[in-house]
Amino acid sequence: MNETMLAERASAAGPSFGDMANAIRALAMDAVEKAKSGHPGMPMGMADVATVLFTRFMKLNPADPAWPDRDRFVLSAGHGSMLQYALHYLVGYADMPIEQLQKFRQLGSHTAGHPEYGHALGIETTTGPLGQGIATAVGMALAERMMNARYGDDLVDHYTYAIAGDGCLMEGLSHEAIDLAGHLKLGKLIVLWDDNHISIDGSTDLSTSTDQVARFAACGWNTIRVNGHDEKEIEAAISKARAQGDKPWLIACNTIIGYGAPTRAGTSKAHGEALGAEEIAGAREKLDWPHTAFVVPEPVLIEWRKVAARGAAAEAQWKARLAATPKAAAFNAQVSGEVPAAVDAALKELIAKHVAERPKIATRKSSEIALAAINGATDITIGGSADLTHSNLTITKGMESVKTGAFGGRYIHYGVREHGMAAAMNGIALHGGFIPYGGTFLVFSDYARGAIRLSALMGVRVVYVLTHDSIGLGEDGPTHQPVETVAALRAMPNLLVFRPCDAVETAEAWAVALAEKRTPSALALSRQGLTALRTEDTGENLTAKGAYVLRETEGPRDVTILATGSEVEVAVAAAHELGMVGVKAAVVSMPCWELFERQSDAYQREVLGTAPRVGVEAALRFGWDRWLGERSAFIGMTGFGASAPAPELYKHFGITAEAVAAAAQSLISKE
Amino acid sequence: MNETMLAERASAAGPSFGDMANAIRALAMDAVEKAKSGHPGMPMGMADVATVLFTRFMKLNPADPAWPDRDRFVLSAGHGSMLQYALHYLVGYADMPIEQLQKFRQLGSHTAGHPEYGHALGIETTTGPLGQGIATAVGMALAERMMNARYGDDLVDHYTYAIAGDGCLMEGLSHEAIDLAGHLKLGKLIVLWDDNHISIDGSTDLSTSTDQVARFAACGWNTIRVNGHDEKEIEAAISKARAQGDKPWLIACNTIIGYGAPTRAGTSKAHGEALGAEEIAGAREKLDWPHTAFVVPEPVLIEWRKVAARGAAAEAQWKARLAATPKAAAFNAQVSGEVPAAVDAALKELIAKHVAERPKIATRKSSEIALAAINGATDITIGGSADLTHSNLTITKGMESVKTGAFGGRYIHYGVREHGMAAAMNGIALHGGFIPYGGTFLVFSDYARGAIRLSALMGVRVVYVLTHDSIGLGEDGPTHQPVETVAALRAMPNLLVFRPCDAVETAEAWAVALAEKRTPSALALSRQGLTALRTEDTGENLTAKGAYVLRETEGPRDVTILATGSEVEVAVAAAHELGMVGVKAAVVSMPCWELFERQSDAYQREVLGTAPRVGVEAALRFGWDRWLGERSAFIGMTGFGASAPAPELYKHFGITAEAVAAAAQSLISKE
Repeated sequence: MNETMLAERASAAGPSFGDMANAIRALAMDAVEKAKSGHPGMPMGMADVATVLFTRFMKLNPADPAWPDRDRFVLSAGHGSMLQYALHYLVGYADMPIEQLQKFRQLGSHTAGHPEYGHALGIETTTGPLGQGIATAVGMALAERMMNARYGDDLVDHYTYAIAGDGCLMEGLSHEAIDLAGHLKLGKLIVLWDDNHISIDGSTDLSTSTDQVARFAACGWNTIRVNGHDEKEIEAAISKARAQGDKPWLIACNTIIGYGAPTRAGTSKAHGEALGAEEIAGAREKLDWPHTAFVVPEPVLIEWRKVAARGAAAEAQWKARLAATPKAAAFNAQVSGEVPAAVDAALKELIAKHVAERPKIATRKSSEIALAAINGATDITIGGSADLTHSNLTITKGMESVKTGAFGGRYIHYGVREHGMAAAMNGIALHGGFIPYGGTFLVFSDYARGAIRLSALMGVRVVYVLTHDSIGLGEDGPTHQPVETVAALRAMPNLLVFRPCDAVETAEAWAVALAEKRTPSALALSRQGLTALRTEDTGENLTAKGAYVLRETEGPRDVTILATGSEVEVAVAAAHELGMVGVKAAVVSMPCWELFERQSDAYQREVLGTAPRVGVEAALRFGWDRWLGERSAFIGMTGFGASAPAPELYKHFGITAEAVAAAAQSLISKE
Repeated sequence: MNETMLAERASAAGPSFGDMANAIRALAMDAVEKAKSGHPGMPMGMADVATVLFTRFMKLNPADPAWPDRDRFVLSAGHGSMLQYALHYLVGYADMPIEQLQKFRQLGSHTAGHPEYGHALGIETTTGPLGQGIATAVGMALAERMMNARYGDDLVDHYTYAIAGDGCLMEGLSHEAIDLAGHLKLGKLIVLWDDNHISIDGSTDLSTSTDQVARFAACGWNTIRVNGHDEKEIEAAISKARAQGDKPWLIACNTIIGYGAPTRAGTSKAHGEALGAEEIAGAREKLDWPHTAFVVPEPVLIEWRKVAARGAAAEAQWKARLAATPKAAAFNAQVSGEVPAAVDAALKELIAKHVAERPKIATRKSSEIALAAINGATDITIGGSADLTHSNLTITKGMESVKTGAFGGRYIHYGVREHGMAAAMNGIALHGGFIPYGGTFLVFSDYARGAIRLSALMGVRVVYVLTHDSIGLGEDGPTHQPVETVAALRAMPNLLVFRPCDAVETAEAWAVALAEKRTPSALALSRQGLTALRTEDTGENLTAKGAYVLRETEGPRDVTILATGSEVEVAVAAAHELGMVGVKAAVVSMPCWELFERQSDAYQREVLGTAPRVGVEAALRFGWDRWLGERSAFIGMTGFGASAPAPELYKHFGITAEAVAAAAQSLISKE
């Protein structure tokens, strides 16, 4: 039979379920083969599950990929990206014609090695680093419930589906995610586990013996086991999960990796490399899929495209409901992601007050005060902390907590789960409707770094409130004292790292963080009280410039002292001391290096000046040479901290005004 | 009654169990009160459990804290450090007199805020960052079994006990740890969970609903619940756990945080602050502990010191067994931590071979070859990978895998658990007898960063084999392409970060990593093949100098090109290109910045030269200015990578010899 005849045969009875799923398998095989790179095993193994899910349940409209009430689909096992691209082609996303599948993993294509948010329509989140997808999905499912609590079932009523592999469930992040989801009883979250017993090293028996179904049950999930190649069992399980929404669901799908590949199915050889022409030919025969590479017969495609039609109809009904409700304006405003103007006004008012009152408070406290102003002016912010609420100072007056099964609140007790919190915040931001912020100690941003990197890579507006930002935290000692952590965050692209010096800079940092729609922010905040240094209100957000001259000299500078955060007051004291002996020292506050990088060369030169420079930061020098130049000194840490009261530590490690002044004198003497 | 009378009373009948435990409670209250900082709640809550464990089971000898066959005790809930310091005082460690407890959390004391390895005798690992202790304990318990497999019960037969809190069990790291321990059936690992229902934010009901006992059972553990204030139940549970060694044990101890504090017991107020004079007075009354602050009556102390006597006797018997076995010499050599001279000889031979043969291979492959030489010359190395064995190339010929219940192998399939792997490696290194190395992709070192930081802080010899080290990995795309990861690792104190350029440098890096007893190492290795550049064998380990002149010019340099890893060959090609047009360009290879920092100023100046400099690295510039100076350019990345074949990416991002040469010309033209 030729292609036309085959198509006709299929058309007569309508394509079989096997045909529908085999379209995914074949596209995955073919694309990986053409690229000579990629992962065919997972798409082939999960094709049946994905076919049931998409053809019978998923609510999506490829013509309007951002429709707020669409179901969310997360491919947590992101290496199986061809599953997603095949689905996107089959249901008809405009940017995913067959030519894109033929350019899998090539420069500039929409079909990147792993699903990349923003890189192709309908990709809800970037996955690939294992465990991130499932943890991000928890945030999406939570956001759905929080929006539902505000706008009701008419406007917000969708599911979050995630496909996770063995690797996702081995990652510690998965524990944080499922523990949180189980606790909150996120009943509209359905995880489909690709239980294929294969990981890269070989059988999962090499490294795990966990009974995942029992594990999820222990964490408060509903669970069910199915044959992942039996359409009826899969359909029944998803139907049951949707009908019984008291808890999140794990559907364990027993599958064969590389299903259909004659010699590689069920082996780790199917996981991560092209199958080769011979194996593919064998698979085509075994699957009874005689079509040539990248060809999906029209009847199969027509059947697949019905998913889009179903979604479009659902969206039309939803739009009618939206048009009919008085909540429409509020809903639209909230999903727009725009920060209400009242927020900026509240922060400006707060700054004026700080300038007038000059409070000597910790910047974590300044952050709390800024948050009170922000949270009072808008309700799109969602706070939280990884069990350090009253240390991070992330909850403000009147904020209700989100509780098990009750989602009207705005504050989330994430538990001792920094990584899970960060990933959930990514999910909340990606879902839309909210700006999430969450707190932990700065040093424990290390635990969350995998998810912070995805915040940056995806460009989502998430704000990390990272308190206890240096040896200034004192007695808890070196395990808790960041000395390298700010540098490690500064090293990351597309992340704004703020280390404000006082209450005014902290409020300014919050204003920038909220305004930056495509960039996450991290605020490094002090535990200890800091002197008010910004004592004039020019109406300009100086923190938005990244760095600025806080104290200028009269006449040419002898030295410029650069500092951030809690050390700016040390720099000011040093400048004062130097002034007493006739040395003209300017002080530059540098709350955000990344924003300073964005300024013009002329502005940078003006701020940095031509005099020798002394940098001061209660951290290692790493990264500072960018600003210091060759005629420079640095006062800071040279290794890990120690356990003692903070003032003693500053003396012990020599981070004092006297040391800065002495370093400046020494530099000047060499001029 | 005065102190003397009280002591006499106690002496007559012997101190009660309550007295023994109250000694811990009182010392914890008093020390935290004096410091006005710390965590009294956990030591007070777990005092009964700790008293049973130490007085009836723990095998330790304070007079010989490093005795290899001692039981290991890990306070995973490290904030409860006063529990450990109180125990150390009570059993009589020489460096823990009462005066040290009176200096809790003060500069220079042995009683740091959290237990710090190396800071006081008998502290087996640094804890405080939650989850690390339990995951490190898994490594210790594994090392015990691996040593046991070699030397038998006569020499190696000890338990690893860990006390973990709710926070430890919420951290994702705990999942990786218990999953691995359950899989391997580490029957001599006993975790005592302080199940007090309180976390910092308040009741654990705020953030978790997990049935921990069911969760551990799902991961292959034995479990039992006890009243953590009932000495008989605790004793029976530990006895049972020791008797039934088929699986690791979770003993869930229902306790009251701050037990004895009249108003704060059972509340989050007991967790992390001093109780205050009034509450302490009330607690003394409630506990019937009328002694003044820091006073432990002699009979109680005498009873506690019996722990040491029991341990000393056990060690004496052990020494007799050691003296009697023909394995003694091998055992002593292995626990000494000395690398056999054969290793260095094998690496030198390998380097000579590389120089002669000039293989063009990936540095991950070079690493595999170096490992084959190392593992052939010694059996103290323990390999492993987080499920990327054949990508990281970490297994060498003849290496047997460690399997469930069978510990004779030398290779560990850690599963998709980067963080758990790193923490387990810390535990293996701390236990003694082995040098662990483990692989993952460089970018996923982010997942393990919490434990890598502890490797560095504790100064343990662990080697991280981090392959796929740049955009050079190609198609997997930006989620897998490190652009900031090497910088983030370089930012960390006491970590050697190697990025070797060819097979010779890779072998040299391994030689240094094994020789550095007090510093962990991270090797950033390429996926792609690299040209052999070290084509002379001077007999000197040039990588040990951190940076060196690879290609010198004849006569004064016009420009110096600095590069690392896969970009050194780009630099060499650029120098060649420049040479063709009469520009004298030297090339400096910088495989390890930290080692270069250790060199003399004179050597650094000689290497870096005075000509303008161009840096080349397929990564962001962050950190490079330390070496580049003001007359400089940098060729590298400016943001995240992309998905495409590697050669295209190098062109796309402009990391080419032409670009380097052009940058050099541009600099020279400004001179």
